[in-house]
Amino acid sequence: MKEVRVYIQLKQGILDPQGKAVSGALQQLGFPVNGARVGKEIVLEIEADTDQQALELAEEMCRKLLANPVVEDFRCTLGEG
Amino acid sequence: MKEVRVYIQLKQGILDPQGKAVSGALQQLGFPVNGARVGKEIVLEIEADTDQQALELAEEMCRKLLANPVVEDFRCTLGEG
Repeated sequence: MKEVRVYIQLKQGILDPQGKAVSGALQQLGFPVNGARVGKEIVLEIEADTDQQALELAEEMCRKLLANPVVEDFRCTLGEG
Repeated sequence: MKEVRVYIQLKQGILDPQGKAVSGALQQLGFPVNGARVGKEIVLEIEADTDQQALELAEEMCRKLLANPVVEDFRCTLGEG
């Protein structure tokens, strides 16, 4: 069993209203924030023999289901962190 | 300007219906997945002089606004990643 973390963010240039709301709320609270982007972190438990195989499966899952390639970028990393 | 990434996940033991839906959908597609947890990745642009100061600000933002400490855990890391 391998743990793969998938990170999905809107592509640069795509309007991110959730990020704008977060950044505005932080500024209201007095925090020195110039911007925020909100994306997803998905932690997957994958049955795979090798790290490489687990990563390839995760990338295929992103392309087929998890990410919208028109407006989102994704990256996959192994294990904690 | 420092870039800090904040990761927010439901605590262990808290029911995660979104993760269950993702894991079920991946299994339906034939992927060998045993579980999925869905959380948030927030990328913050913070005005700070040092890395340490930026991280401390990000942690304070999590406690005050971004995370719900009753049901969520968070971690903050600097820069790309």
